[in-house]
Amino acid sequence: MKTLSLTAVALALAGLHSAASALVVNQAITETEVLAAQQAWCKALVDISQTADKSGQPAAKALAEKVIDAAYGYQMGAVLFKPTLTVAPQTFRTTRAGALAYFVGGDSAFPKDTGFALKGWKACESKNAAVFIAGDSATTMGNVMITGKDGKVTTVDKTWKFVKDDAGKLRIVVHHSSLPYSPS
Amino acid sequence: MKTLSLTAVALALAGLHSAASALVVNQAITETEVLAAQQAWCKALVDISQTADKSGQPAAKALAEKVIDAAYGYQMGAVLFKPTLTVAPQTFRTTRAGALAYFVGGDSAFPKDTGFALKGWKACESKNAAVFIAGDSATTMGNVMITGKDGKVTTVDKTWKFVKDDAGKLRIVVHHSSLPYSPS
Amino acid sequence: MKTLSLTAVALALAGLHSAASALVVNQAITETEVLAAQQAWCKALVDISQTADKSGQPAAKALAEKVIDAAYGYQMGAVLFKPTLTVAPQTFRTTRAGALAYFVGGDSAFPKDTGFALKGWKACESKNAAVFIAGDSATTMGNVMITGKDGKVTTVDKTWKFVKDDAGKLRIVVHHSSLPYSPS
Amino acid sequence: MKTLSLTAVALALAGLHSAASALVVNQAITETEVLAAQQAWCKALVDISQTADKSGQPAAKALAEKVIDAAYGYQMGAVLFKPTLTVAPQTFRTTRAGALAYFVGGDSAFPKDTGFALKGWKACESKNAAVFIAGDSATTMGNVMITGKDGKVTTVDKTWKFVKDDAGKLRIVVHHSSLPYSPS
Repeated sequence: MKTLSLTAVALALAGLHSAASALVVNQAITETEVLAAQQAWCKALVDISQTADKSGQPAAKALAEKVIDAAYGYQMGAVLFKPTLTVAPQTFRTTRAGALAYFVGGDSAFPKDTGFALKGWKACESKNAAVFIAGDSATTMGNVMITGKDGKVTTVDKTWKFVKDDAGKLRIVVHHSSLPYSPS
Repeated sequence: MKTLSLTAVALALAGLHSAASALVVNQAITETEVLAAQQAWCKALVDISQTADKSGQPAAKALAEKVIDAAYGYQMGAVLFKPTLTVAPQTFRTTRAGALAYFVGGDSAFPKDTGFALKGWKACESKNAAVFIAGDSATTMGNVMITGKDGKVTTVDKTWKFVKDDAGKLRIVVHHSSLPYSPS
Repeated sequence: MKTLSLTAVALALAGLHSAASALVVNQAITETEVLAAQQAWCKALVDISQTADKSGQPAAKALAEKVIDAAYGYQMGAVLFKPTLTVAPQTFRTTRAGALAYFVGGDSAFPKDTGFALKGWKACESKNAAVFIAGDSATTMGNVMITGKDGKVTTVDKTWKFVKDDAGKLRIVVHHSSLPYSPS
Repeated sequence: MKTLSLTAVALALAGLHSAASALVVNQAITETEVLAAQQAWCKALVDISQTADKSGQPAAKALAEKVIDAAYGYQMGAVLFKPTLTVAPQTFRTTRAGALAYFVGGDSAFPKDTGFALKGWKACESKNAAVFIAGDSATTMGNVMITGKDGKVTTVDKTWKFVKDDAGKLRIVVHHSSLPYSPS
């Protein structure tokens, strides 16, 4: 017995059945894809941390390169990246090298970078305040909570903009992370 | 009792529950919206025809103006419109006036236009060969079959490009219609 | 005597002269538009401050409403806005009311807001680290320096995403502002 | 001596000098890129024709494959392609194979295709009625005039939609071509 989806039934009732055999290519960004990309970012941060603990900085650096190449859009021209803990005059990391140095350190061109992903993070979770999908990009704003070796949770305010590359994969093209404002 | 949608369950199982309370604004164009816009175009063509038959050309013209203002994007700067039956040097109708003249005639600036929508069309159906949704637009290509007073069906090859306006409504910004090629 | 632009000459030499009479509608976002929108934001901040000083909070509030309606995209569904000095659980201001409260205070629904634009700002300047224009949006990342009554300059890290509305005007749809990280 | 561009001078006069040192990545589609892509399409058609004349169909086919891979967006999922001379039920060529068969024939899956690009075309020129650039795409509508062996010019009505791929190159994702309507 053939079963029809609710959508198909609704379309048929609306007289829209003629589209049934059309080729449909839908590359619109979905909320599910956005949430998965955020989860992947969190998982990658923890993976790099664990790799550093188990196998040392060179292994962590190799993994970080893979993560950056897979998750960010540096190959599209630049990424607008303001990491949580950078300071002037190297606050903004528009190049791949600047991102890599931030995550795993060891680059004399970025002398203040000690490697954010080398700090032994054990867990990471994203909690969106808002997800906005429109046109050719999706943007999110909210908190990311990362748990350190000692179980202490650090919360940051985070904005991401994702676009889909030609292969259909979401890539981060804007990333602004900051510690919450603390009134003195 | 609270029931969870399948999507919510799937997200929870995937550990993506944290997005549950986020504000989500999703303006991505959907296939359903595209099919509905095509149906609306077909319905409008038949409505204008019937209005002309019942109430005369001025009433049909008034309706056509409403339809053009609601369904096309002339207010966005221009529409790339190649109607089925226009000829040089007025083949392309990039202005609202040119579209209106094509549909209901009666404009001395477009002397060859007799009013395509005044021909007594009784039915109209769209059959897509392909629907492509990506970035900030959706494009379709396929056939539109329109049935005349005598029951004869005319089939045209048709391409539409739709974008979403600020109010979230699809508008036609490209429309190329042509009679099928007939080898001699 | 008719003079030809360099572009026209180059096109003619390249055999592209046939486009000379085409209708060209180009709504691509330009760098000049982006810089102008940033300047307008800075000017508006100073204007609201001066209005508050001269005419009081109600006048400043009225002006802030005009500014928000003209410069932000709240009417498009939401804005992802993380102001510099907000705190949890009201860090993110996705609604127009939340933005207005941040700038001019006086809203019991946002009890910690004292009105950022009421602090007597005398000057404001934007200095981009990067401007990225692609697809249907432009994003910028860099610093904004604002000068207070006492001449002291406050520098913030700022990310903006702009899109063009149907009328061709740039609107802020993402705005993340944060104080620079200060290593303890 | 340092020379400033007119743009830099204009920006400085407008008080926008602070952007001078920013990294600017501008991937907006330009009219020049659109005209160049149209010229490239025309040149490719003539090149394939000449290659067929000089070196035979296999060489023309090899060239056509290169042209399709470089100029169309089949690798992005599909292309909405309605060639000038195709007939039902193979009017629409959403696959690379269907495009290749149209241009050079020799594919038993498309038995009516004799190879449009094998007809000895000597020249090709594009004349736009309109060029519309907005969001992540550019669309054009107008005529293409192609000159045959005997010097006879064939004019077609043509619509193209171009998008920029990740490498910054324009690709055709919609192509509707039709013979002008000829009132009987």
